[in-house]
Amino acid sequence: MQAFTIGIDYGTNSVRAVVVSTADGRTAATSVFEYPSGDHGVLLDPRQPHLARQHPADYIDGLRAAVGGALRAAGADTAFSRDRVIGIGVDTTGSTPLPVDARARPLALDPRWRDNLAAHAWLWKDHTSTTEAEAITATAKAHAPELLSPIGGTYSSEWWWAKIWHCLVIAPEVFDAAASWVELADFIPAVLSGVDDPRGIVRCVCAAGHKAMYSKAWGGLPPKAFLARLDPRLAKLRDRLYDEAHPPGRPAGRLSGEWGSALGLRPGIPIAMGGFDAHYGAVGSGVRTGTLVKIIGTSTCDCAIAPVADRIPDVPGICGIVEGSIVPDYFGIEAGQSAVGDLLKWWVEGVGQGGDDLHAHLSSEAAALAPGESGLLALDWNNGNRTILVDTRLTGLIVGQTLHTTRAEIYRALIEATAYGARAIVERLREYGVAIDRVVCCGGIAEKNDLFMQIYADVIGQPMLIAGSPQTPALGAAVAAAVTAGADAGGYASWREAQDRMTTLKARRFDPQPAAKAVYDRLYVLYRELHDAFGGVPNATPDLGTVMKRLLAIKENAR
Amino acid sequence: MQAFTIGIDYGTNSVRAVVVSTADGRTAATSVFEYPSGDHGVLLDPRQPHLARQHPADYIDGLRAAVGGALRAAGADTAFSRDRVIGIGVDTTGSTPLPVDARARPLALDPRWRDNLAAHAWLWKDHTSTTEAEAITATAKAHAPELLSPIGGTYSSEWWWAKIWHCLVIAPEVFDAAASWVELADFIPAVLSGVDDPRGIVRCVCAAGHKAMYSKAWGGLPPKAFLARLDPRLAKLRDRLYDEAHPPGRPAGRLSGEWGSALGLRPGIPIAMGGFDAHYGAVGSGVRTGTLVKIIGTSTCDCAIAPVADRIPDVPGICGIVEGSIVPDYFGIEAGQSAVGDLLKWWVEGVGQGGDDLHAHLSSEAAALAPGESGLLALDWNNGNRTILVDTRLTGLIVGQTLHTTRAEIYRALIEATAYGARAIVERLREYGVAIDRVVCCGGIAEKNDLFMQIYADVIGQPMLIAGSPQTPALGAAVAAAVTAGADAGGYASWREAQDRMTTLKARRFDPQPAAKAVYDRLYVLYRELHDAFGGVPNATPDLGTVMKRLLAIKENAR
Repeated sequence: MQAFTIGIDYGTNSVRAVVVSTADGRTAATSVFEYPSGDHGVLLDPRQPHLARQHPADYIDGLRAAVGGALRAAGADTAFSRDRVIGIGVDTTGSTPLPVDARARPLALDPRWRDNLAAHAWLWKDHTSTTEAEAITATAKAHAPELLSPIGGTYSSEWWWAKIWHCLVIAPEVFDAAASWVELADFIPAVLSGVDDPRGIVRCVCAAGHKAMYSKAWGGLPPKAFLARLDPRLAKLRDRLYDEAHPPGRPAGRLSGEWGSALGLRPGIPIAMGGFDAHYGAVGSGVRTGTLVKIIGTSTCDCAIAPVADRIPDVPGICGIVEGSIVPDYFGIEAGQSAVGDLLKWWVEGVGQGGDDLHAHLSSEAAALAPGESGLLALDWNNGNRTILVDTRLTGLIVGQTLHTTRAEIYRALIEATAYGARAIVERLREYGVAIDRVVCCGGIAEKNDLFMQIYADVIGQPMLIAGSPQTPALGAAVAAAVTAGADAGGYASWREAQDRMTTLKARRFDPQPAAKAVYDRLYVLYRELHDAFGGVPNATPDLGTVMKRLLAIKENAR
Repeated sequence: MQAFTIGIDYGTNSVRAVVVSTADGRTAATSVFEYPSGDHGVLLDPRQPHLARQHPADYIDGLRAAVGGALRAAGADTAFSRDRVIGIGVDTTGSTPLPVDARARPLALDPRWRDNLAAHAWLWKDHTSTTEAEAITATAKAHAPELLSPIGGTYSSEWWWAKIWHCLVIAPEVFDAAASWVELADFIPAVLSGVDDPRGIVRCVCAAGHKAMYSKAWGGLPPKAFLARLDPRLAKLRDRLYDEAHPPGRPAGRLSGEWGSALGLRPGIPIAMGGFDAHYGAVGSGVRTGTLVKIIGTSTCDCAIAPVADRIPDVPGICGIVEGSIVPDYFGIEAGQSAVGDLLKWWVEGVGQGGDDLHAHLSSEAAALAPGESGLLALDWNNGNRTILVDTRLTGLIVGQTLHTTRAEIYRALIEATAYGARAIVERLREYGVAIDRVVCCGGIAEKNDLFMQIYADVIGQPMLIAGSPQTPALGAAVAAAVTAGADAGGYASWREAQDRMTTLKARRFDPQPAAKAVYDRLYVLYRELHDAFGGVPNATPDLGTVMKRLLAIKENAR
């Protein structure tokens, strides 16, 4: 008898539910719910350009609508019936904390708090907490540097403590009214499980370890003494949060009777541990030891895993290394680039004032160029550098322009810059003992932009493989549900077996071309000289006085 | 009785004659002759993109047509009559050498040589002689470094010896057939004077000193021993060139009977020494001790003078310091920037794919920005750096881009980059004792682009004055003719007096704004760090790791 799981993917503007066959990962049905509130689900404040919040009602409404819609659509599948659904998995954006009341309900659902933006969910891309993030970094560096080691050395304004602290500063009434705070990734499983007490919310180590400085090494969340240095009220809040966070594989709860009735599913089926979209996307892309998964879109998120037994050291500049954050018994390793698709969008739409036609035109012209032929070299830092420099106060750079430089040449140079940035991440991981012998890409650019993928293969020197599913996070959540349900229920006993059966690669792949790779190896040397010089890497010895001449020499040999 | 002189300006695509009143510099008439040969006068070879030659017949035809036309037009001026013309001055592009036969006629006028491109005039922008230029630099560095001191340390492929040597290599039959070689600036006065023997051609120190390594310090042209190291046949050629070159002020000759008849002018009136367009442009802009004249167009040429008595040392990176090359008894000092208007043209037309409308649009948007507001900093080297680095193998650079950077911001950053380059020249000259307390600009950009001029005033920290004449080279040639004719004939006894009477400034000027200047002083520090790092300046100690952060700090304080 066939079994099915449901994967639910909470994005920034919509929530998507997929119904997946556990036997082969086939998608029986999909449904998407666009958030109705604010600007495509995002609440904005014209006076505060860095603010991005979301009404939690969208999450609940989206849960009902997307899952309900997917189940109805799955009815067309003759093998499907609702009682064959053996589990549900959830992934979300993050860090997306929201304050809840004593019954684990979002504060913003209470009419008293509805109009206070601080009481809503603080979206991952909310950047109002820069001051607090810098103070957390400074305080940790001075008093508890170990807290920063697993998160790359710098605390971000996008993360848990910075946001909650900022709430305390700007809206103490909200902070005081909150019985607890919860990550969206933990909130949805708690909702499905009917949890009505914040102490009953099961927390995932994915969010806790990557965003909240949680580690077994210091007994969970940061010690009260450290939090008190930030603000004594944060130290007190610690008692109302959680002591333990868990890797995926165990249930976060079981489907409540109320939600079972609402959705027509069997009450009691397991709800998998929540997780971030990138992490479950890695699962849905078949991540394993030696595989780097690249989720390439406006920005890029890189995920890898390494056996806990290998005792990976802290890797400088890698944003997160957390035990069990992707699959249990492995370190989950997360890195990323702040602007990838956005960099091309800036060039084509912002500077070039064009649209899809210009994208296609420049891409076609850029594809006709040989590596090195433009004579250009760029740094991909228009939105700062997340990995490996962990510095938001970096900006873009282009060198090598002549009076004949074309916009297609610059377009290609920007793609190449992001590829060099990607290679810097791969090299840093390898340098610290993380094996990478396979790169699997997913996301819009990986699916659509062949020039981009070929440049990545040539620059990184590895084949670029493409994940089979266009919705790897939702598929990964469905895989997690299948593992959580277990083999007896029609799922799987191991992650590897579940991934082998339920995830696929596309047949088409991009292999490095030796001649192109040789040119890019030379250009990468120059990239690293600029990278280290402008990135402020200590003891860098770039030879910048010859950079332009070396670029010209490569250009003159390119054809 | 009013007197008049004629100034004749040989440009790349046309020749212009002006009839000028010596009393006040007023233009009585102008006539322009567009060269009919080749591509607007330039002979090209599709197989050799660096080749640019010109048919000498264009020069003779243009002389007759432009001067004849100007004289006819001047007939409408009641004060004018042809017998009141007291002298003729000539300026030309350069270095523009052409081979002549034993009767001082251009070889290319002989049907036997007409179809050989090497027998025509070698235009200033002909870049076929790169190999020879590099060999000249290397040989001089090794065996006669003093030869390079007055020309900035590097011999250019645009100059006399490189071109003649290249002719010897590629067309030895032309080299052998040439009785001598002559700069266009010396050829035209010789034509007007009826010179029919190359030994009778009077040579100007302007071309000789700046382009042919002529100096009294080593007895004129480079010693035969040096030339023999390049090629023994060049050493032999030296005997057929000249022993002495002269500053302006003395006649290069007197109008021949033949040309007097042809033009209806009195035979025997003095023909002033020829000179380069930029140098006579400086005269026509009122150059004097303490004045820097900037001729701002596609590129920029800077001219200054300093009394010989002041014994200016060699200034590193300044292309030329030659006694008497602009006015007698003063060092003529020449510097320049390789791309100024061309840099904006590249951005608007090359990258932006726009025309005049886009120029105007970006200029208007850029004018609305405050100094530093873009967060951008650029190097103005898309066409190499002529002064002060003297390095053609340098390229452009832009740093500071974000995902919100606009094309108007980059447009302004490019203007600013050229202004920083201009300031680097001013600072280098001052550092070596050349006084600069007044900047007079001429050329198309100076006349038309207010934003550009204001940025220059703010960056350089000096008022930008605008020359009164839109044709300063032709006016300067007319001034030279008035001085050469002398006070008794209705001209002048001194250059200063002639300039005071015959040249003017426009009433509108651009004064530095203190607040803008303060921001640009901070940005210039960053420019110099990039300039020295990428320009390979020895012992530079740039702090590139903080450049992006310092730009962001300036940006954040800009409004």
